[in-house]
Amino acid sequence: MTDVEATKSSSRAQLLQAAAALMSERGSIEVSLSEIAQKSGLNSALVKYYFGSKNGLMMELVKEILGRALIQMGELLEMDLDPVEKLKLHIKGIITVYFRYPFVNRLIHAMFQTPETAKEVAETISKPLAETQRRLLEEAVAQGRIREIDPMLFYFIVLGACDHIFFGQHILHHCFGVDEIDDDLRRRYTDTLLDMVLTGLLIEKAGATAATVIKSGKAA
Amino acid sequence: MTDVEATKSSSRAQLLQAAAALMSERGSIEVSLSEIAQKSGLNSALVKYYFGSKNGLMMELVKEILGRALIQMGELLEMDLDPVEKLKLHIKGIITVYFRYPFVNRLIHAMFQTPETAKEVAETISKPLAETQRRLLEEAVAQGRIREIDPMLFYFIVLGACDHIFFGQHILHHCFGVDEIDDDLRRRYTDTLLDMVLTGLLIEKAGATAATVIKSGKAA
Repeated sequence: MTDVEATKSSSRAQLLQAAAALMSERGSIEVSLSEIAQKSGLNSALVKYYFGSKNGLMMELVKEILGRALIQMGELLEMDLDPVEKLKLHIKGIITVYFRYPFVNRLIHAMFQTPETAKEVAETISKPLAETQRRLLEEAVAQGRIREIDPMLFYFIVLGACDHIFFGQHILHHCFGVDEIDDDLRRRYTDTLLDMVLTGLLIEKAGATAATVIKSGKAA
Repeated sequence: MTDVEATKSSSRAQLLQAAAALMSERGSIEVSLSEIAQKSGLNSALVKYYFGSKNGLMMELVKEILGRALIQMGELLEMDLDPVEKLKLHIKGIITVYFRYPFVNRLIHAMFQTPETAKEVAETISKPLAETQRRLLEEAVAQGRIREIDPMLFYFIVLGACDHIFFGQHILHHCFGVDEIDDDLRRRYTDTLLDMVLTGLLIEKAGATAATVIKSGKAA
């Protein structure tokens, strides 16, 4: 919760922090205004004062959590780094956000279900993220490092893959007997996901290519 | 809705079908008993009679939708087919279920949030699916077709990737201007996802391996 904690001097920040803590504890975004008020030690009327409504508070929470991450991801584009390394850092960054705030993806989807917040979350969060991703992919393709891929399909495949272990914590518990996503599991999930996305599971491909090359090498 | 339609002779099936239709239309699992009753043209008291509660109806809907798909996936294990082809058919099967019933993954997660249905959905749906997947992976690894992978991590990465375009239909609309997942988009999503999972995005690997083999070939 360090991002949110950093500005906890104000009541506004205390309310955001209380909502985030409740959602993390429960693994659910179903929290009431009075629960948020109680957790923060403040009056629930302050939610209306600062955010207009519970939806307003949730929108601010999304922006607070993802704002800094989005800026950092945008900065990647300007860095003098191998484009595949940039893609890796981008994907690691997404998983780290979900690890620290496992409820954030559900919160974004809840914002998309209400017309007044759908436009705002699209413009401030999802579109900038998709645009950064598109440019990272474009750079890697241009430098001949990865194959061409439709950025829209990449967006859904990768975001779904990054999120699902956090979204599915009940499944993790009931089907795999794992009660907590600790730092070790986060790291293994990240490495496995990057491996699958970048080099794939198949052994065959490299072998087949190598065989083809040897054959043509011999013929030459 | 063909699976559900097949047995629509009974009131029980009519209620299930009405619930499925409402959830598909709305892109949300938030439907009330009275809405289900109205859509089916039946009395809402029948929900209590047939299913005990709305949760009971939802649990039956999950089993109705996924039961046949799980049996088909289980049958894959016994088929005389290349293990990588089996994995592909397995993943295609998952995407096809989400395509036809885009709400089903959210329904499963809702079942996991209630203690009385969590155990049932784990035993009847998620564990059998995970077990089938584990055996498919094991077979492909044993035949030297894919690299070793932790089946639990594979489960979350692949299920999240398969589901997210359906779960994120609002994002598809607001960020990418796509209003409908038609058969063409489903096919492109499936092909791209299979490509990423199996052969990965990187161009580098095959090239590097080929180069290494040539080098050692020349040296020999």
